[in-house]
Amino acid sequence: MKIGIFGTGVVGQTHAERLTELGKEVMIGTRNVQESLTRHQPDNFKRPGFGEWHKKNNKVRLGTYFETAAFGEIIILATNGSGTIPALQLAGKEGLSGKVIIDISNPLDFSKGFPPSLFVCNTDSLGEQIQREFPETLVVKCLNTMNAFVQVNPAVVPGDHSVFLGGNDAGAKLKTRAFLHVYGWNDKNIIDVGDITASRGLEQILPLWVRLMSVFKTPMFNFHVAGAPTQTI
Amino acid sequence: MKIGIFGTGVVGQTHAERLTELGKEVMIGTRNVQESLTRHQPDNFKRPGFGEWHKKNNKVRLGTYFETAAFGEIIILATNGSGTIPALQLAGKEGLSGKVIIDISNPLDFSKGFPPSLFVCNTDSLGEQIQREFPETLVVKCLNTMNAFVQVNPAVVPGDHSVFLGGNDAGAKLKTRAFLHVYGWNDKNIIDVGDITASRGLEQILPLWVRLMSVFKTPMFNFHVAGAPTQTI
Repeated sequence: MKIGIFGTGVVGQTHAERLTELGKEVMIGTRNVQESLTRHQPDNFKRPGFGEWHKKNNKVRLGTYFETAAFGEIIILATNGSGTIPALQLAGKEGLSGKVIIDISNPLDFSKGFPPSLFVCNTDSLGEQIQREFPETLVVKCLNTMNAFVQVNPAVVPGDHSVFLGGNDAGAKLKTRAFLHVYGWNDKNIIDVGDITASRGLEQILPLWVRLMSVFKTPMFNFHVAGAPTQTI
Repeated sequence: MKIGIFGTGVVGQTHAERLTELGKEVMIGTRNVQESLTRHQPDNFKRPGFGEWHKKNNKVRLGTYFETAAFGEIIILATNGSGTIPALQLAGKEGLSGKVIIDISNPLDFSKGFPPSLFVCNTDSLGEQIQREFPETLVVKCLNTMNAFVQVNPAVVPGDHSVFLGGNDAGAKLKTRAFLHVYGWNDKNIIDVGDITASRGLEQILPLWVRLMSVFKTPMFNFHVAGAPTQTI
């Protein structure tokens, strides 16, 4: 299973590290490979720059968005929400056609500081915008409702907790389900919430998530739907 | 503990029935008591009209919003979201001054059909609007994230699941906590999410709740925060 990841930040890095550990082939896509590799300054969270990270994770391939789209059987969107559609535009519609795109990004707007608001919500969503802008792709909104460390390893949060799948294509959701199994997600905790318009609800849960993170002073929690009936797959 | 409930719909009825069963004194507030009592036609969900309901639940007092505000030590807002502020305006600022107001309403807009959108969200919320419009009240956003039958009896959903408290006044949140204990909520599942601006997140979880209800074909589920640290009270 070859995975292309768009985004060099902590979310993209976390997925790339874990997938490599799990024996998968990974390419991270970025606007400019050389520029990304020369980033050595720590980021706002005091994490090492991407160049430093890649020295320790040199099994992870790097490529342009275009190259990464060509490489991946599945593409994970791990960009900042505002960078998601521009990254896909750089990849190009042709190379993305028919690809399963797992959108884990969130339309967070930090322009007025913390906490962020959403730059699209209520009657539209980022997931829908992506599907509309790239109608030949198979977008699945997934994993955006939790921290990256929980996304790639659900066992770090105790007990049962949920991951949601929203998308228009049943086959793409099955492939996403198989991808989630790689990380250790069980079907009983994977909830299919229907078509891509479910992105509205999945993205609008973020303000509560952000509030909980502030109150708890940790991002190591996740939403669980208690009483959810078993879904047939 | 005397409870005033604003709203004669299924949510208000459910709270009134349960509180009466639990030995509490309850008054339901409405715009026009006589008009409410003459409602005998079933509603859209084929529930009997309020007049029929009250014949079977005649321990529940009825009053105007003004009388109900005077009666209740705690006021529960169980109106439709769009009716919440108008009902409070009819009760009047003077009678509401200093009261603990538990806002369980949601800013759902059904004007374009199902699923509803939100008539306020993102950078403001109904809970905040109420607190701003009635600055002398102590608003606590609570219980709006689940079905009324779960609100009044958490044991109907198996396992642990969460109820959130958001409000500016610590004393009002303590009283709300005591009120939740009456229904059987345990402190370990009551999550204090800070001030009333938390209403944004709590109300914006509704689109996902509505979607889950549509997918599951039942409202008997609830969100749980797995991994939530224990809070000191």
